Amino acid sequence: MKFSIDRSKFINQTSNVQRAISTKTTIPILTGMKLDLSESGLTITGSNSDISITSFISKENSENDLKIENTGSIVLPARFFNEIIKKLPGDNFELEVLENNQTLIKSGVSEFTINGLDAVNYPHLPEVETDNQLVLPTDVFKEVVNQTVIAVSTQESRPVLTGVNFLISNEGLTAVATDSHRLSQRRINITSDEDYNLIIPGKSLTELVRTISDSVKEISMSISENQVLFSFDNIMFYSRLLDGRYPETDRLIPEESSTKLTFDSSKLLASVERASLLSHESRNNVIKLEIKAVDKKATLYGNSPEVGTVEEVLDFDNLEGDDLEISFNPDYLKDALRSFGSNTTIEMSFTSPLHPFTLRPVEDRDNFVQLITPVRTF
Amino acid sequence: MKFSIDRSKFINQTSNVQRAISTKTTIPILTGMKLDLSESGLTITGSNSDISITSFISKENSENDLKIENTGSIVLPARFFNEIIKKLPGDNFELEVLENNQTLIKSGVSEFTINGLDAVNYPHLPEVETDNQLVLPTDVFKEVVNQTVIAVSTQESRPVLTGVNFLISNEGLTAVATDSHRLSQRRINITSDEDYNLIIPGKSLTELVRTISDSVKEISMSISENQVLFSFDNIMFYSRLLDGRYPETDRLIPEESSTKLTFDSSKLLASVERASLLSHESRNNVIKLEIKAVDKKATLYGNSPEVGTVEEVLDFDNLEGDDLEISFNPDYLKDALRSFGSNTTIEMSFTSPLHPFTLRPVEDRDNFVQLITPVRTF
Repeated sequence: MKFSIDRSKFINQTSNVQRAISTKTTIPILTGMKLDLSESGLTITGSNSDISITSFISKENSENDLKIENTGSIVLPARFFNEIIKKLPGDNFELEVLENNQTLIKSGVSEFTINGLDAVNYPHLPEVETDNQLVLPTDVFKEVVNQTVIAVSTQESRPVLTGVNFLISNEGLTAVATDSHRLSQRRINITSDEDYNLIIPGKSLTELVRTISDSVKEISMSISENQVLFSFDNIMFYSRLLDGRYPETDRLIPEESSTKLTFDSSKLLASVERASLLSHESRNNVIKLEIKAVDKKATLYGNSPEVGTVEEVLDFDNLEGDDLEISFNPDYLKDALRSFGSNTTIEMSFTSPLHPFTLRPVEDRDNFVQLITPVRTF
Repeated sequence: MKFSIDRSKFINQTSNVQRAISTKTTIPILTGMKLDLSESGLTITGSNSDISITSFISKENSENDLKIENTGSIVLPARFFNEIIKKLPGDNFELEVLENNQTLIKSGVSEFTINGLDAVNYPHLPEVETDNQLVLPTDVFKEVVNQTVIAVSTQESRPVLTGVNFLISNEGLTAVATDSHRLSQRRINITSDEDYNLIIPGKSLTELVRTISDSVKEISMSISENQVLFSFDNIMFYSRLLDGRYPETDRLIPEESSTKLTFDSSKLLASVERASLLSHESRNNVIKLEIKAVDKKATLYGNSPEVGTVEEVLDFDNLEGDDLEISFNPDYLKDALRSFGSNTTIEMSFTSPLHPFTLRPVEDRDNFVQLITPVRTF
């Protein structure tokens, strides 16, 4: 294996693949980055137990300045290899595999000899059929992921809750996540003739949206029994799926409400951020919302026995229904409010101090809901 | 005590004082920020066992929008107080001390009540006579600090070595620091009729140069027996001095040399950074420089038994003297090279593989020297 290549084009591709490579893996070869050189170009692969990413650098594209002397494969220690390539002096570099997987890297006055690993020992990529592909607009897909992944559980006690449940049918696509304290559900108008019900790990989705650059307009999604493959540009992003049955969540979302508050998402976010400064210092991270419907007044309270108290009269657009005192974790409300974007008009609906309350954007009430379970403080 | 003030002007000043406040102090009141309100303005103070910083916000300056209702003092928990002020909704805020040091902060719709501490229990500031002041141009002083503080020891075993030694007389100002593996010495043309020999803690100097904004042209330095006071703008920066005798360092700097290498600081820095990528992975972080005078060739070698090797032929301006093989810690050389600034022509002088070598800027050879002790590898 011997080739030379444009250094900055190479770095662009390794930075994508790098996302899949962990330094804390129990399988030593997975700390490496695999390079496969064929007559048509160079494929770079990174992998961990959850995701695998490949990126293809084509010989056809003259910008890559890829000159192939002979084909082959090697696995190189990812962290060093990247640091070395980043610091090399030249615009191009040459890479050659010598005996015993020793790999020579030359650029300008620099010559590195790195101990590689035999590529035959690198795990195979999952096999995913790409006959039935769903095509998703990137901006909508990123929005769905960012809006739901916030509610994913970080506890491994119920593994399915660490993922986002995607339900796809001829009626549309619904994504839902819950850690059992809060829930986020978003619907979009992407249909499929075949029905799918899959749970994608939250961490995979977070890495995926980071990998998709803004210039990508559409991504393709292919689903197999225990893997999902997203392809875009010259990148293939594989994630394992979570085993098990995702709980029915529809019945958790209350249909009725006794108190409704309408407000600007950014204004309420600023108030909650202030109130949480103090609640973060108390043992139970809770703030209280007091609604006096007759006085048309909503007040937020936070306190920490050590530091002090905060009280804030909210600036809302509309308030109707019954009086209410309700306490909750301000961080859940902050996450939810951020997911709506700045200056969006939100409707908050309450039934009672101990029942979950919901937040929905007034403009798109039926397709997006955030639910938060209150905290009993008495 | 009751006043109102422009919020952003107040934040600018607290961020300076904040540098002196540590969350990890054994004296609880020092986690607080002291506010002293007199008829002429507000003094904010932060302090730890090494440094104290005060900042004065004048009533005279209308930009501060300082409105004083009644004078007084309070100590507030610094971290919260700052976070609260930063997140308040209004352009101004009002602060009032109530009973039992409870402090009310109001801005727009927000009302915070914070538990304060009685200011009488706050330690007194050091007393430093300001009759004999040295006036220093800020840019030169910052340069001297940044160039020497890199060589300060981080080990507490010999406390004097954790400081920079300043020698000031009618012949000039010399600053020197050494951790016994390397040394940095800088001279400037600031004279004083009185002789001074003081050791300022490296950490104090680092915080000091961060506190001095670029708009400050000159700073004043006043010295007492165990304290030094730097004043500039509306800020007073006190640091304790280190007790003890600083070692004589002049005799450590070799006068003669057998091999000389002249090069561009940025080019050599890039080479050393590459070589250190591998040396950082080996147990003894060492790289080797091999000089072959006859061939006019200088080569840098780095290696890590696990990862691999690197070899780099250096691009120098001039080389003269004897052949040499010398090994050293690349991080010391990187620090030294960075201290000269980019693209400065540097002369490196060697006597033998086991004697310290020096780096000097060709343009200012007599006033600035970095010394590095090599490592025995055989």
